[in-house]
Amino acid sequence: MVEAARRRRALDAAKAAGADALLLTHSPDVRYLSGFTGSNGAVAMTNGQTALFTDGRYTAQAKAEVDGLRVVVGKGSAASLAMEWLIQRKVQRCAFDAGQTSVAAFKQMRKSVPSGLRRKFFLPANDLVAKLRQVKDEGEISRMKRAAELGCRLFDGILAHLVPGAMEIEIAAHLEFAARKAGAEAMSFETIVASGKRSALPHGRATTSKLPRRGFITMDFGVVLDGYCSDMTRTVHLGKGNKRQWDVYHSVLEAQNAAVAVVAAGVSCGDVDNAARSVLKRDKLAKWFSHSTGHGVGLEIHEGPRVAAKQEQKLEAGMVITIEPGVYLPGEFGVRIEDTVLVTEKGCEVLTAASPKAWIEL
Amino acid sequence: MVEAARRRRALDAAKAAGADALLLTHSPDVRYLSGFTGSNGAVAMTNGQTALFTDGRYTAQAKAEVDGLRVVVGKGSAASLAMEWLIQRKVQRCAFDAGQTSVAAFKQMRKSVPSGLRRKFFLPANDLVAKLRQVKDEGEISRMKRAAELGCRLFDGILAHLVPGAMEIEIAAHLEFAARKAGAEAMSFETIVASGKRSALPHGRATTSKLPRRGFITMDFGVVLDGYCSDMTRTVHLGKGNKRQWDVYHSVLEAQNAAVAVVAAGVSCGDVDNAARSVLKRDKLAKWFSHSTGHGVGLEIHEGPRVAAKQEQKLEAGMVITIEPGVYLPGEFGVRIEDTVLVTEKGCEVLTAASPKAWIEL
Repeated sequence: MVEAARRRRALDAAKAAGADALLLTHSPDVRYLSGFTGSNGAVAMTNGQTALFTDGRYTAQAKAEVDGLRVVVGKGSAASLAMEWLIQRKVQRCAFDAGQTSVAAFKQMRKSVPSGLRRKFFLPANDLVAKLRQVKDEGEISRMKRAAELGCRLFDGILAHLVPGAMEIEIAAHLEFAARKAGAEAMSFETIVASGKRSALPHGRATTSKLPRRGFITMDFGVVLDGYCSDMTRTVHLGKGNKRQWDVYHSVLEAQNAAVAVVAAGVSCGDVDNAARSVLKRDKLAKWFSHSTGHGVGLEIHEGPRVAAKQEQKLEAGMVITIEPGVYLPGEFGVRIEDTVLVTEKGCEVLTAASPKAWIEL
Repeated sequence: MVEAARRRRALDAAKAAGADALLLTHSPDVRYLSGFTGSNGAVAMTNGQTALFTDGRYTAQAKAEVDGLRVVVGKGSAASLAMEWLIQRKVQRCAFDAGQTSVAAFKQMRKSVPSGLRRKFFLPANDLVAKLRQVKDEGEISRMKRAAELGCRLFDGILAHLVPGAMEIEIAAHLEFAARKAGAEAMSFETIVASGKRSALPHGRATTSKLPRRGFITMDFGVVLDGYCSDMTRTVHLGKGNKRQWDVYHSVLEAQNAAVAVVAAGVSCGDVDNAARSVLKRDKLAKWFSHSTGHGVGLEIHEGPRVAAKQEQKLEAGMVITIEPGVYLPGEFGVRIEDTVLVTEKGCEVLTAASPKAWIEL
């Protein structure tokens, strides 16, 4: 029972912070700790007791998904049910995730607490489970590999559809159809297909714009397979590219490879960002690299760590992060290249290695 | 400029609550008030001045999407940029959405406020813009009609794919492919295809389970078209149904029609819920109707009002809500039928009327 071990670690972390209980409502955290995948769920833990809370829509599903854990079904929000249960168990101080609890929900949670306890009852603990989730275990790594491999197969398959005049959303449709056919539960975010001048939009979601006869197409997409997200970006050129396009592409590629090359346990996230950024600085393109180099990925498409300038957090073996520098020249074009990599003791394993990064002209 | 009028109404609501400024960060609210569709955005308003805040990834997009509004691009969270701007403008008391701001983000926002002002600076105003968004204007209604009509066309098209042995996710894939081809930006939620015994799961997302030779298939899906969500459910039967299935189906259908029939401006949401629930009570099925009758829909798939037992909120002309009773018999089967309807002065207009609700045997 991998979830039971995770729960023990989460409760230990809460205790280390000074709490005797833990309440979690963010659904990826709930899934991580219990296996439950419904939308209204909470996990509460205190010494020796743990329960999952949800509502009547999920009675059958919760029982099927959750093993070795009490399931409490009731009316209203799962958090309220959990609060009631914690108070009955004489909890004195309960850690909760302040980054995933709204001010309004917190006010509601506070109401359940007897007034004598209220002042000290809650311990805000940002990202308590999210921090545990940053380092993936074996089962998670194998799921993430399968998701990344599926992403690469989809990229292979989509190349044949990249013809002038096709709409960006048709490309997205083909990708997503193939993903579903291959067993994906969903896409991990809104598929980005940005062609021609639109490739200069870092987040250019697919539109009805038509692919040009000559120009870049940036495709940034991911699948959710068995709960875990893949994430990759490739930029290819339709028709013959000019020297400027070729040069920018190869600067981005060199930056991306440079960042991948420095990834290893013990290296700071800021150093990884800097490896990419300094190549673009050398080529006078850093001004147009308007976002950070990458982010963790797992049950959520954006997790810790942040791979950004000056981030001092050190990478650890088992973390899975993206490396995705880009250059965006407004009104002209943009290029982004992204791999998902698994951090190891000595370096990293590129999970999206099956898709080539060399210049592709179609 | 429909957005400018919306902003005036939002600021008026904030003023009525006792604030001289308003800060919004929930992305559907930001889109509603500014047209901006990026993920990191904030709108801040105080007397005579309004601005949209975002980061460097969205510079070009913000300028293209936002009209007649100052755009401020900076580093870090849009909320922090907005707070700085508000403090410079000598704001004394700022309304914010407590339901859409995390405890951690709020703590961060508080740090920007000079200590002398801090105690009184923030006015928690749950759903301030969400409340305005409940009543749709003409442009929104026409978008929602188009989204609902597309949903109906997709349902028509999917029937041919419902054959024994096909996987639920293949059905979802076909639906989603057709949606994309027709211009949908995304699905409005994870497509539900629940077949055979799985139809007893109210939220049975499509899996690799195969459609049975005989049994129900519940399909609950929606598209996002021009920002607005559609939502509909139909349950059809593969092979010949038995009397029990037929009876339950017709109880649910009668309940659904009964609820649609009472919808009108001035009627309480609780009364609509009760119209459906009392039919199922009469047929001794209410115990298995484990969720509420419906919800508002618009830029988000779940908005106000809540169409649930005892809800006293009155419907208003221009609201768009779902009516979706269901009966779920664990281990046996389930049936849900859902329309999206536009509330009018005298009754309602069923936006998903193009898809038949009569018993379908395939």
